[in-house]
This record gives sequence, C-alpha cells and structure tokens, in this order.
Amino acid sequence: MYKFPKDFLFGYSWSGFQFEMGLPGSEVPNSDWWVWVHDIENIAVGLVSGDLPENGPAYWDLYKKDHDIAESLGMDAIRGGIEWTRLFPRPTFDVKAHVERDEKGNVVSVEVPESSIRELEKIADMKALEHYREIYADWKGRGKTFILNLYHWPLPLWLHDPLKVRKLGPDRAPAGWLDDRSVVEFAKFAAFVAYHLDDLVDGWSTMNEPNVVYQNGYTRPAGGFPPGYLSFEAERKAKMNLIQAHARAYDAIKEYSDKEVGIIYAYTWPDPLREDIEDEVRAIRERELYSFVDAVHFGKAADIEEREDLKGRVDWLGVNYYSRIAFDRVNGHVLPMPGYGFSGERGGHARSGRPCSDFGWEIYPEGLEKLLRDLAKRYNLPMMITENGIADAADRYRSHYLVSHLKAVYEAMKEGADVRGYLHWSLTDNYEWAQGFRMRFGLVYVDMETKKRYLRPSALVFREIATGKEIPEELEHLSNLDFLVG
Amino acid sequence: MYKFPKDFLFGYSWSGFQFEMGLPGSEVPNSDWWVWVHDIENIAVGLVSGDLPENGPAYWDLYKKDHDIAESLGMDAIRGGIEWTRLFPRPTFDVKAHVERDEKGNVVSVEVPESSIRELEKIADMKALEHYREIYADWKGRGKTFILNLYHWPLPLWLHDPLKVRKLGPDRAPAGWLDDRSVVEFAKFAAFVAYHLDDLVDGWSTMNEPNVVYQNGYTRPAGGFPPGYLSFEAERKAKMNLIQAHARAYDAIKEYSDKEVGIIYAYTWPDPLREDIEDEVRAIRERELYSFVDAVHFGKAADIEEREDLKGRVDWLGVNYYSRIAFDRVNGHVLPMPGYGFSGERGGHARSGRPCSDFGWEIYPEGLEKLLRDLAKRYNLPMMITENGIADAADRYRSHYLVSHLKAVYEAMKEGADVRGYLHWSLTDNYEWAQGFRMRFGLVYVDMETKKRYLRPSALVFREIATGKEIPEELEHLSNLDFLVG
Amino acid sequence: MYKFPKDFLFGYSWSGFQFEMGLPGSEVPNSDWWVWVHDIENIAVGLVSGDLPENGPAYWDLYKKDHDIAESLGMDAIRGGIEWTRLFPRPTFDVKAHVERDEKGNVVSVEVPESSIRELEKIADMKALEHYREIYADWKGRGKTFILNLYHWPLPLWLHDPLKVRKLGPDRAPAGWLDDRSVVEFAKFAAFVAYHLDDLVDGWSTMNEPNVVYQNGYTRPAGGFPPGYLSFEAERKAKMNLIQAHARAYDAIKEYSDKEVGIIYAYTWPDPLREDIEDEVRAIRERELYSFVDAVHFGKAADIEEREDLKGRVDWLGVNYYSRIAFDRVNGHVLPMPGYGFSGERGGHARSGRPCSDFGWEIYPEGLEKLLRDLAKRYNLPMMITENGIADAADRYRSHYLVSHLKAVYEAMKEGADVRGYLHWSLTDNYEWAQGFRMRFGLVYVDMETKKRYLRPSALVFREIATGKEIPEELEHLSNLDFLVG
Amino acid sequence: MYKFPKDFLFGYSWSGFQFEMGLPGSEVPNSDWWVWVHDIENIAVGLVSGDLPENGPAYWDLYKKDHDIAESLGMDAIRGGIEWTRLFPRPTFDVKAHVERDEKGNVVSVEVPESSIRELEKIADMKALEHYREIYADWKGRGKTFILNLYHWPLPLWLHDPLKVRKLGPDRAPAGWLDDRSVVEFAKFAAFVAYHLDDLVDGWSTMNEPNVVYQNGYTRPAGGFPPGYLSFEAERKAKMNLIQAHARAYDAIKEYSDKEVGIIYAYTWPDPLREDIEDEVRAIRERELYSFVDAVHFGKAADIEEREDLKGRVDWLGVNYYSRIAFDRVNGHVLPMPGYGFSGERGGHARSGRPCSDFGWEIYPEGLEKLLRDLAKRYNLPMMITENGIADAADRYRSHYLVSHLKAVYEAMKEGADVRGYLHWSLTDNYEWAQGFRMRFGLVYVDMETKKRYLRPSALVFREIATGKEIPEELEHLSNLDFLVG
Repeated sequence: MYKFPKDFLFGYSWSGFQFEMGLPGSEVPNSDWWVWVHDIENIAVGLVSGDLPENGPAYWDLYKKDHDIAESLGMDAIRGGIEWTRLFPRPTFDVKAHVERDEKGNVVSVEVPESSIRELEKIADMKALEHYREIYADWKGRGKTFILNLYHWPLPLWLHDPLKVRKLGPDRAPAGWLDDRSVVEFAKFAAFVAYHLDDLVDGWSTMNEPNVVYQNGYTRPAGGFPPGYLSFEAERKAKMNLIQAHARAYDAIKEYSDKEVGIIYAYTWPDPLREDIEDEVRAIRERELYSFVDAVHFGKAADIEEREDLKGRVDWLGVNYYSRIAFDRVNGHVLPMPGYGFSGERGGHARSGRPCSDFGWEIYPEGLEKLLRDLAKRYNLPMMITENGIADAADRYRSHYLVSHLKAVYEAMKEGADVRGYLHWSLTDNYEWAQGFRMRFGLVYVDMETKKRYLRPSALVFREIATGKEIPEELEHLSNLDFLVG
Repeated sequence: MYKFPKDFLFGYSWSGFQFEMGLPGSEVPNSDWWVWVHDIENIAVGLVSGDLPENGPAYWDLYKKDHDIAESLGMDAIRGGIEWTRLFPRPTFDVKAHVERDEKGNVVSVEVPESSIRELEKIADMKALEHYREIYADWKGRGKTFILNLYHWPLPLWLHDPLKVRKLGPDRAPAGWLDDRSVVEFAKFAAFVAYHLDDLVDGWSTMNEPNVVYQNGYTRPAGGFPPGYLSFEAERKAKMNLIQAHARAYDAIKEYSDKEVGIIYAYTWPDPLREDIEDEVRAIRERELYSFVDAVHFGKAADIEEREDLKGRVDWLGVNYYSRIAFDRVNGHVLPMPGYGFSGERGGHARSGRPCSDFGWEIYPEGLEKLLRDLAKRYNLPMMITENGIADAADRYRSHYLVSHLKAVYEAMKEGADVRGYLHWSLTDNYEWAQGFRMRFGLVYVDMETKKRYLRPSALVFREIATGKEIPEELEHLSNLDFLVG
Repeated sequence: MYKFPKDFLFGYSWSGFQFEMGLPGSEVPNSDWWVWVHDIENIAVGLVSGDLPENGPAYWDLYKKDHDIAESLGMDAIRGGIEWTRLFPRPTFDVKAHVERDEKGNVVSVEVPESSIRELEKIADMKALEHYREIYADWKGRGKTFILNLYHWPLPLWLHDPLKVRKLGPDRAPAGWLDDRSVVEFAKFAAFVAYHLDDLVDGWSTMNEPNVVYQNGYTRPAGGFPPGYLSFEAERKAKMNLIQAHARAYDAIKEYSDKEVGIIYAYTWPDPLREDIEDEVRAIRERELYSFVDAVHFGKAADIEEREDLKGRVDWLGVNYYSRIAFDRVNGHVLPMPGYGFSGERGGHARSGRPCSDFGWEIYPEGLEKLLRDLAKRYNLPMMITENGIADAADRYRSHYLVSHLKAVYEAMKEGADVRGYLHWSLTDNYEWAQGFRMRFGLVYVDMETKKRYLRPSALVFREIATGKEIPEELEHLSNLDFLVG
Repeated sequence: MYKFPKDFLFGYSWSGFQFEMGLPGSEVPNSDWWVWVHDIENIAVGLVSGDLPENGPAYWDLYKKDHDIAESLGMDAIRGGIEWTRLFPRPTFDVKAHVERDEKGNVVSVEVPESSIRELEKIADMKALEHYREIYADWKGRGKTFILNLYHWPLPLWLHDPLKVRKLGPDRAPAGWLDDRSVVEFAKFAAFVAYHLDDLVDGWSTMNEPNVVYQNGYTRPAGGFPPGYLSFEAERKAKMNLIQAHARAYDAIKEYSDKEVGIIYAYTWPDPLREDIEDEVRAIRERELYSFVDAVHFGKAADIEEREDLKGRVDWLGVNYYSRIAFDRVNGHVLPMPGYGFSGERGGHARSGRPCSDFGWEIYPEGLEKLLRDLAKRYNLPMMITENGIADAADRYRSHYLVSHLKAVYEAMKEGADVRGYLHWSLTDNYEWAQGFRMRFGLVYVDMETKKRYLRPSALVFREIATGKEIPEELEHLSNLDFLVG
C-alpha cells in the first residue's frame, strides 16, 4: 500500500547547540544563545526556561551510541550540524575575501580563495574541526548518507551580542543579522567548512529555518529568542541579510564542492477556516511562506525585487513541518486564530478537537500533504523532509504523528512531489531553545542526569516502517485519529 | 537485568464468548449471557451496553490470522476456552454418573465413566467439538503450548435462565450455580472435554475467575452480570457450588488426563491506605481473597469447614491481576475506598494521582508483586499469570502497564515465586461483557466492522520482550511512571 | 417581563428522613431506609455511601432557624413531610378498618372510622405527633402556606425489611409495597394524620415520587435503593400497590378534611435526540411517564385497565423536575442514551455540551417547559412545582438553574399551564439517600459538624425573585447558558 | 464578627480607556494604546486581542445607569479616571512652566502658575472637561465620595508613539516615559485638572500602577503592552521618569488643592515556597515591590539614591492586589515559579491546587493580608484598596474572592493597618488592555452589543456586605476554599 521507493531515506536531524553539550568539555560559551539562556534577567522574567544546554544529551561525546541506535532503528541518513562559534570563537572580519556590492550596497558576490582558507585555519579551533570529522566519519563509515547544515541559530558573540543590543541598541553592539557584515562572514565560514569536510558530506544545506530566526528574534518576543526586540523593520532587515547570506554561502560551497546545496525552511500550512477567505490566505502564503525561497530560487518574491545574484541558489529544498496556522476573518481582518496550529492547548486539544502536543501544537498532517503538493508545483525541486516530529514526553501521540505524516508524504509523492527522504526530529530528546528540556521530541528518551538512552514505543514503530521502507498494513490504522479514542 | 528463564512462557488468553463470534454461523444463542445482553429491558435500564457479541472479533473463523500474529509477536503459549453451551445446547441431566453425597448433601464425589461419555456424545454438537480441535491443533502445530480452561462464565440456558430467575425467583427457574445439580453437570462436561481433547492440551484449568461470577452475579448489581440479584446468601451458595464444581471437575479430568489441572482466579491486592489497619486488611484477604483457593487446596478456609474431598485439587494456580482495592477506615469500618483501584476515573486519574485505564482501573503494579509473594508463601504452587492487561483504546498506557507488571513478576520470582509464564489479556480487542466493545484490551486493535487486525505500538514492545525473554535495558524505563510525564 | 401572579407561591420542600435527624434524640431507627444505609455489607460493596442520616441537618430541633431563613428569603410556602415510622414504630395491622376488595383482590375501598383512629392513638407515638404540630404551627404562625406530604420513602420495618427480603425472598419477609396489606395500612396512617393535623394544613399530598420507589427499588439496582432487587415483575407489583395506596389514602384524607389532595410525581422529559423517533418516544411517555397519574386521575392508563375506584383521585399535581432523559435509536431500539440527562459527567458536561451538576445531571430547563405544557393539556389540573434544584456544592450553576427553570415555568404558564407555585429543593443541604451528604442541594450550606447554616450566593438570587414575585430584568441573563462562559 | 468601621468605604474603580468608549462620539483615537490595539501587525502576531475599545461598556454615555447600580449595591465611593489625551489631543510642550533641574538633569521642581492654566485652556478640549464634570457631579450629587486618579496608562500620541518607536527606535520618535519631557507635561496636566475639578474631588491619586507600565512596556513583551520593547535599561529609565512625574504632579496638585494626594500601586505578594529562601525574597521585595513608593515617600529606595525633592509625596496609598508571585530556588537562583500566582492555568488550578481565574491568576487572599501588614509597618500611611477583583465570566469564584479578600483586609486592620476603604475592580465588565473583552472583571455583566447591564450573583453578595459594612455571619463561609468543593 504505502510503499516508498527503495532509495527513499529514513533518518533524523540534529543541531549542535541542542545536542552536543552535556558532558564537561563540550561547552561553547561564547555564542548569542549561550549568553541569552544564561542571562539571569531573562530567566527571572520567564523569557527562557532556566534549563541550561550544558546539561543536554551529550552527543559530542556519545555520538557512537546514538549512531548505533539510529542504525538499529533502520535509519539511512542523518542531517547534522556544525557550530560556527565552536570553529570560530574569535572574529573572522580580518580575513580577506573578494566582496562585490551593487549600488544599493547589496552583497552580490563573495569569493573566498584558498589563501583565505589558510588565514581562517589560523583563527579556527582545528581540534574541534577534527572532532566533527570523527563524528561524521563514524556515521559515513556505516555506509550511510550524511547531509550537513551550516547554520542552526547560534551566532558567535563577536557577531551578535543580544544583551548588549538590548542595552545599547542595535547600532552600538554586535547586531547579528542586522549587521551587513554577517553576510560576508557567513560566506567565509561556509567556504571553510566545505573545503575541509566535503569528503564526508553527501549534500549541503546552508541554514535551517532562517524565518524562525528573524520572526522570533524581532516580532514575536513571547517566543524567547534573542534579541527579543519588537521591530517589524528589524525583521525585514534580518530577513534580507539572511537571504543574501544563503546565496553567498551557496556560491562559496560550490567553489569547493560539486554536491547539491539546498536550504532548510520552517514551513507550515496557512489554512483558511472558511472558504471565502481563500484568496486572502493565498496572498499571505506568497508574502510570508514563500518569499524567502522564492528570492533565492527565482531571484525575486512577492515582496522582493528581482536580483540576478540571488537566482538559482537552491539545488534541493529541506522541508520542516510541524503544524498549520489557521486563518479566519476577525473584525474585518484575515488573521491567525488562537487555539489552532501552534497555539493549541498544551497537552490538550485544539479548537478543532484535534489533539495537541506538549507544546500545544495541533496535530495536522493534512497541512503537510497540501504544502508538499504546492511546493512541488511551485519549484519543481527535489525535496527532503528535514524535520517533522512532536513534543510528546509520554509518547501518547508520536506513533500517530509519525504514521499520519508519512502517509501525507506518500500521498504528495503519488501526485508528483519529488521527496527523497524523511528525517525525523529527532532521534533523542534535546535542548528546545527557550523552552529547555521540557519539550521532548525524541523517539528515544534521554535521562539528562545519567545521559542514558531508552526507546519510546514509537521508536519501534519507526523501525517497522524504516526497515521495510513502507507503512506495513498492520500499522496503517495509526494514521487514523479515531484510533486514538477507540 | 530483567531476564526471564528460557522456558518462561509469553502468550495471551482468550475466552469463547468474548472472542469467537463475529461472522455468521458462529453464534451460540442459548446461554445465560446471550439472553442477558440481548434483553431489551436490561439494555433500556443501562445494565448492559447494547453491544452484541455476534459483532465480535470472529476468532471462530479467523483463528489462523490471530495465531499468525501471536507467533509474530514471539508468543509461546495460549490459554484458550471452550463454550459449554456450544458443545451441549441440550441438557445433560439424564446422562448417568456416579454421584456421592455426604450427610449435608455436599457432592463429595462424581465419577463419569466412558459409558457416560458415550451418552454425552449423543447429545453433544460433535461438529463444534471438531472445530475446536482444529483451532487448538493449528496452534499446537506451530510447536506451541496450549492451556485449556473449561468454564469462562456463560452457562447453558437449560442450567441458568437469568430472565426467568428474575421473574419467578431462583426456586422456579433454572438457577445456575444456585442449583446443586450444576456441580454434577459441570463434572460431566469436564470429563467429556478431557476425554476428547487431552491430546492437544498441555495443561488444564477448570474455571476462570469463579469469584467474579458469584460476586457480580449476586451482590454487585451495578456490574451488570446475570442474574443481577442482590443477595449475600445467594452469593455464598453459588460460591460453595463453584468450589465443589471445581473439585469434581478436577477429579473428572484426572480420570482421562495425566496433565496438571489448575484453577484461574481473579486476584487483586487489598491494600491498606494507612498502617494502622493492616491487621484488618489481612483478615479481609483471608476471608475474601484466599478463601476459594484455600478450600480446594487445603480443604478448608477462613469461612469454610474442612472437607477431605476438596483438598489437594490445585496442581497449578492461574493468576489474573488488573488492579488493587484500597482500604481505609471510614465511620469506624475498614472499607474499600472509591477513587482507587477498580473505581478510579475513567480515562483520568485515581485519587492516588496514578493514571487509570479507560475502565477507570488504577495502574498499580506493586499490587502484583506483593500478591505473588504472598501466594508463593501460602501455597508453594507453580503459578502462571493468566490475565493481565488494560482497557486502553489509545494505547496510551499499555506499554507502561506491560513493562511495569512484568517487572513486578520478575521481582517476585527473584524472591522465590515459581511463575511459569505471562499470558496477556489479550491479543485482540474483544467483547467485554456488560461493557461491550467499548473497553479495548487488545495489543491488537480490531475493526469490528471489517474484522481487520492492526498492531498497537505496545504490541511491538511486547514482541521485543517476548522474543528475548527479557526486558531489554533500552525499554526498562517504560516501567517508570515519571516517564509518562517527561 | 417575567412577572408571576401576586398569589404565586415561592418556597421549598423537605422530607423527614433527609432533614430531621442530626441531634441526639431525633433518630428513627426502625425503618427500611435506616437499616439499609447502616448495613455494613451494603456499605462494603458501595451500594450506599456510608454516610449516616443521624449526622444530618437536624431540622427536628432547628426548624425555627430554618423557618427564619426561609422567611428572610421571601418564601411563602413549605411542603413538609411526616415520618410514618416515627408515628407508628409498631404494626397497625390489628387496627380494624372496613376494607372492600373486588374479585381480583384489588383493594377498592378502605374506610377508617373514628373508632379506628382511637385504636391507632394507642399505638402511635403521640409525643412525636405533638412535635410535628409544633413544627408546622411555627411556620403557619408566620402567616404562611403549608402543604403536607405523607409518604416520602422510608417504610416501617414491620412493613418492609429489605435485608430479610434479600436473604429470604419477598415471600418470607416483610416485603413493603410487594405486600398487599401495605395499601390498607397506608390508608390508616393517612386517616390518622388527616384527623389530627388538618387544621395546620393548606393542602395534602399522599406521596412523593412513588415511581422512584418502584423503579430504583426493583429494576435499577445501581441506584442503591432497598431492596435492590432486580425484577421487572416486582416493579409492576409495587407500582400497582402504590397506585391503590394513593387512591385509598386520598379517600381516607377526604373523610377528615375538605382540603385538596394531590400527588407528587418524579417527572422528567423523555426527549428524542432525532426527529424520526418522536412517535416511539411519545409511546414511552404514555407507558412510563404518565401511566401512574393517568391511573389515579382517569382511572386507567396505557398499561392499566379501567377501575372506577381509582378515578378522580387527584385534586392537584405536584411536579418534581430535575433533568431530561434523552432517547436515540441504538441497534434498532429506541433507548435512553448515556451521557445525557441523569447520566452526564459528575461536575462536568453532558454529551450535549451542557453543564452537569455534581450528580452528573444535565441542566435542561427546556424539558420543564415542554413537560408542563404537556401536563396542562393532558390533565387540566392545578399544578405546583414541588421539587426543582441542583446538587452543586460550589454554587457554580444554581443561580442559572433557578432562573432558567423559573423562566420555563413562566413560559408554560403563559401558554395556559395552571401552576400555583415553585418549591425549591431545597432550602438546606440534606441527606441524599444512597449518596449521603455528598450531593448538596441547598440554597443554604449546612456544616454538618456544627449544624450552622450559611447562605450560598444563589440564595440571594432566590430572594430577589421571591420578594418581587418576578425575575428582575437585571437578573434575566442568568437563564442564558452563554453567560456561564462569558 | 467581621465588622468594618462605620466610615469604611465600599465602592469600585474605573479608568477612562477601559470604560468610557462604546457609543459613537466617545472615541479617543490619538493615544498610544489606541494605535497599539488597532495596529494590524500587533493583532496579526497575537500581541493584542483584536478586540477594540470603541466597542466597550460606554460609561461616557451611560454613567448615570452605572451610578444607579453602584448606589443600589450599597457603594459609597468611586475611584474614577480622566483621559489625558481626551483633554489634550494636541501637545502642551509650548505652555510655559517653571522647571528646575539639578546637576544630573533631574526635574526637581515644576511650577504651573495660573497663567499656564490659561494657556492650557486654549489647547484643551473644554467640552470634554465639562463632560467629566457632569460625570463626577452625578456621583457627588448622591452624597458619595469621589477619588480622581490622573494617569491610567494611555499617553497622548504626541508624547508616545509606540509604532514609530518600534520602527525608528526611542531616540527618533515620541518615546513616552523614556522622554524626560514627559515629567513636566504630566505636571502641567495635573495642575490643570486640579485647578478645574478640585471642587468635585475628595482625594487625589496621580497615577495607577506605574510599575505595570514600565515592566510590561519594556521587559515583559509577552504582556502585549506598548512599546513591547525588550530592554532592562529602558525599564529603569521609564521608572525614574514615572517617579519624578509623580512627585512633580503631587506638587502641582497641591498648588490648587488642599486634599490628600496619593498614588496607586500594583502590589502583589512575593511569596517564598520554601523557608530557606525567605531572606532572598525579602531582598526582592525591597528592590522590586517597595522601591517606587519608597522613593516618593522616604526620598530614597534600595536601588535609588536619596533626593529631597522626592521625599514626602504620598499622603495616602492606593493598594491594588490580585495575586501573589511564588518564588523558589531553581538552578541556584531564587526565581518566580510558573504555575503559581499570575501564571496559573486559565480557568483551572495553580500548582498549589488553588483555583485560578479565567486569566490564570491564582486566588491567594493570604497575600493581601501579609502585604497590608507589611505596608502598614513600613509607611504608616492611610491606605485604600483601590483594585481587587477577578476575571470570572461565569461568576464561579467571585463571591469567594470577594469575601476572602475582605477578610484579609479585616485581619490586617485588626493588626493596625489603617485601611479606609475597599474599591472593587470593578462594577462592570470592561476592556482589559491587550486581552480585550475576554477577561470579565465585573460584578455586573455587560452585553457589549446592547450595552445592557446585568447583575452577577456576586453583586448581591457585595450588596449584603456593603450595606451592612460587615461580612454577615451567614456569608462568612464563602471565604473558605473548602466550601467550593462541598
């Protein structure tokens, strides 16, 4: 029935900050996220949880164990990360690179020649680089696929100091993506990594969910992201720099690699709750859901003018999907509705009656199918599900979540979507940013005290599916919500 | 860690009335339970659910499929049933047997010679017998263990007509276990089955949970059992006849079999909520929990005078365990407390804070360990867990339930309890008596419309354990209640 | 808007067993209900709560206090009770009366002459009679209305011993309403009370909710009523004797009184959940809702043949209403649906989404309006709401319950129903039969330890309405369910 | 028992922005809060509810009706407001005033002579002033007490434009309390109002809950307050300007009035969950709870150096109290604990087991008693409860809330606290800032469509208490949480 192609990949994704730390010696203290989650004022007002990443699952040291488990669950592929700050604890500003700007100041080209790589090596922590090689090599040595994503949120403190930004304003402190120099430095970092690690990599991604960075960072202060600043202008600025950073990193990787380079985006499904607002919601998708990738694929977007230097910078598309955003007309405006999608009741139900995760995220697999069909038509690119999963400590809904979303992928593929694999978020519990350890996304439970790993029942369901590359008939019903109530 | 002996059996239990029906031709209409659950007055006042057993999982026809699944889950053993009414739709009163009574009228001996077997064959539905052979043989043919239990609640209508009893009183209608003749007829039935099926059987049980029959039938009318009669005298009478019926059936089986003959009892754990009532609760256990098996093992019990003809009639003990009964002192009396054990909140929590099943039964594995240790000391008999499971349609707690109760078994064995196996209740969803299909006890979900079987995630957990005959380290944490909340 | 007539009565109802006891000396131990709720076996199996009536609100001693409160809340009327057992702790069988039976053995006439009254005085507890005079006189002395109801459930033990019935069967123990003599003895009791107390009484009722007695007593064993016997035959027998008992008591009162004599019935509203079963539900109403009163008003009913001696025995009709019974078609039958009406979730919501009382009774005022309109058309009798209220310890819904049901009464009156008053159940918390003290129906909270009385906020709402004999505009919204959620 | 002094005042509080609007012509569009709650981006990201104040309870037009109700409920006193923007839609910068600054730039004195009043009259909307006179006079004309509070949050757009601040930063847009000029302009406004309205006023307050303005505005962005800016520096700056603004407004009022001038503060009770952190929590109180009022009373505070010009500027203290903040030690820090106080479960329970309001605020009257005793000892000032109430649409807990908090006041008074009155928040439902109309704080329900007013049952409880100036014995139990569950 639900049979996936033989070369369809099953696996999981991880990121540095959320997984690596846990045992002494693995800390990376000089990043924006590190100071942000340690800031006592942030903790005191409840912006962040008070949980600390140095008490995490310790993948830096225990990667072999996790790779063993991943293999035992039938996984073929991993999308991993690499911490910018770990490699470059000190500024790279002074390393030369050929930068071209257009008349508006846009960075339209960055070249990072081998001589620059040499200079970067002097600044870099080469031991950390070596350790990353060992981690990746352990997985590759099992005959598996490895995709490397370069940026997954923490920025070096020399590039972004959110506590200073808050105190002094973005003009008088390292402002991260608000600082135009970020584009060039990121390209250097990308070139450096591609130069050194391309032999272990099957595919590249420049960055993970740039949209969450600029939205949560600048216009959703309740999310607890640095710098927690409320400014729609700043959001726009950060977005434009991230777009350019992606394009320039794409170019930089291509200098040293002939693998495919993609981007991973935080997708959702803007979903009209009533028929008569479909046009408005479609317009919202253009502006908010598709704009970023449109820019780096078509070279222009609904809200971005055409630029040749952005065009054609996506070889493959990483799709992260968790839930929908439901829209309704309220007081004359078409608006996201509380009680649905990402704002359901934690551990309870959405207003639709569907169950929610521990995070309050409505389980809504239909959104993934609709999204994939839309993306396939729009871009005609190879895609991979690079994140999909659920915060569900008790493993109450994870089997259902997994099977129902895999069915959605299957259905979209049947309609022509070119999806190459499914990477679950995630293999193990990990550090969920401002929420800390409370949100548990693992197929595998981690006792953060002892660092021991234990399978959740859903891990066995994953194994059944991954080993056969199909949803076996005897597990199909798990996709059915009715099953959850008898 | 939690390694069971190599010959420890994993499997499941089924009963005729709850599993067999579902496809046309499999109905057994002339039993007390059949008329009881079809009675429109019973349905109208809500004593029974209105669900009907003829819409059940259809094991009578689909047994091969279920055996396939059981085998795939690593099961070694089944405890099955046989419907008295199916074999004997017509009365057996006229078949001769040598019956001895003492001066008080007690049936102290019944002999069922081969000539009686011949007479019984003329009355019996021999095609039904043949079909049972096929079912059992299919399982035995896989090199597995089969235990046969003779009585699992429905009585032939010619022996018990609960609707007439209700109308006319127990003196003027077939009164089931209130009728002394029931003892003898049951012995005939037992001899007949042993004579014909012993070659397919590895071990015998006379009856399943006789205590539920006499309690729910006569003094817990809210349970919805026939005849729903409120009389503590009748309860006592039925209990004494069941005790005698067991002893005489034991003797009858032994005439035609040299296998071990046991009894399956509905155990629980009477649990004092405060220390200063331990003596009272111990006394309650003597009178209510141990009395029946004491009678047929020691020949006497706290409330039963010694009788030689009852002594030594238990070769092995079947232990069914689901939850505890919590006791407290109220208005001066030591009483079962609502809100705990079997009277928690359906789908919610017990007053102890522990989660409850869909049935409202508190999850309380400690009770099983304490019980097994107590039973081991008291009887020094081989034991088998013959039922243990949870009504949990959404499979929210079943993995936890399974692992925590297996750990309890393991711990008791470590302290010397001689437990030979663990039979889950049950492989598939089935007909839960007065509750109908709403309470779903299956590792395997059954769509009662299509009769299709689907695995619940806990089935995979069961398989992990059963195939290795141990709780693997990576699943150990499932026994921990904390795991369920993160 | 919602203005009631000037002579419309507001007040409350009480019964002896539930209210009188609480302070030493007020106990009435020799009744069926007393032994039933004290029986340790009943308590142990959970049939009754274990709460004891001798710890009740102590109205026997504190009636002045309660009358003060009732007066302060604007009450005009009380419907009170009198305990048969208190007056006649010893049998009255030997007191002569002229009894006439028809050929079928029906009691078609009972005469209780003054000579019999004299004999009864010798048996009666005349001090108890005197104390009842004082209670009633205190209320009458305030210029208020008093209605006396004779039978509110407890029977003298010499007439009904439910524990013996359970042990020995109804033929060998005092069987209450299954014993034909009950009809005559009740007529004697009625005559005796009418003779002695008519001067203090403004209107008579023979009995309260006879239908609950025969239903819960014989076919709803889960309700915990004596004798908790499951027999549809017995139910029928008890019903016929209660019908005759009413008719003969009516006649007996009329010998000594020229006041109106009525009956109080436990009404509900059988409510079809779908249109296509309306005919079936209408037929159910005929058989189950209207049969009793039809018999004593028209002399015949859907299931009862015409008898001249029953006809015309209702001068006014007491309507007790709490919730509906919802019907649906299930497996081909039109049946009461769990989850609605009296079987909602305790303290939660019914499947309709409407809130439920602590007892799990759905709040459904529409049922009262429909019922009153139906009753008005059917009987054309004066009516009084003699019970209406809610078990709501936290007073969360009582104001809403009160106002919405009063609106229903108002609307029915507008359509022609001749309703003379509204008596709330009840002024104070009291002993709710098998449920004990947990179900709190009072406008006034009673601390059962200290016997102190405290107003619930709804009592103030009652006062606003009762003093003005209208629902003031500023309280109208309380009838609206939306108000309860904002 | 709980008898308050004869001159103890009962009443309620209202503010302009939350109550006045609702009928055409009453809008005040040019304030920061108006543009903030209308901003489509704010609505889209969920920072504000989308409810609009122009659909409010319409007190501007219906004040007589509300005063009627207040009077009928036994209220003696109102604390009302006046909208700065309504009086001064245009800037007052150019109006002269004598301003003195110290060497650090602090505004140590502002004089607003009558000539300035004249100039202000030319700018002011004198019709609006006249309408306020009518409102206040209607209440005073009933022989009642009126307290006027000058600032309750909205600032004129010419002084604070939060959307521009967000876009351009606080240096390039009207920055409200971050702009030092705010101190002087507020003093002018205060002088103007005192000059014109002192004859109708019994007591003055300069501002309501300044701490909420600077906390929610600058460091609690999830609260949805303008400008939703995350900066602990800005918070400090705004706080210092508000302190000076109070002191200068105090002086300005005194120029034209000899009434007492106070300040109303948002108090809570920082409550240690464990004994061993009491010292730390006491220190937190010094820095965060007491600092503002310390500054304007003692002239210095834990975190503020002494200034003569701030000293002695509080004649009376307005205490707003809703819930506690519970502290525990977490990861070594003493921090506010989620799940208690203001962060309980909406409509559910706090982790303490206590019920929460619709807002999720834990009901915790003990905090009020402790607070009042602490304040009495610290300042020895006359106090008034100027806000206390609960968002409870269904009126489930309001009676309990009211009585339990009044008992807390009583107990504190018994120990010496000089509390002059209790003003409930509030008489009617109103516009709850970023939350809109969902949070309903009224004793009186307002249908925002029709503007009709309806009493909640708790209003009748308030009346019982206010008219007798005591908690009558028969209502005392409402303070007991146990009462809410039976």
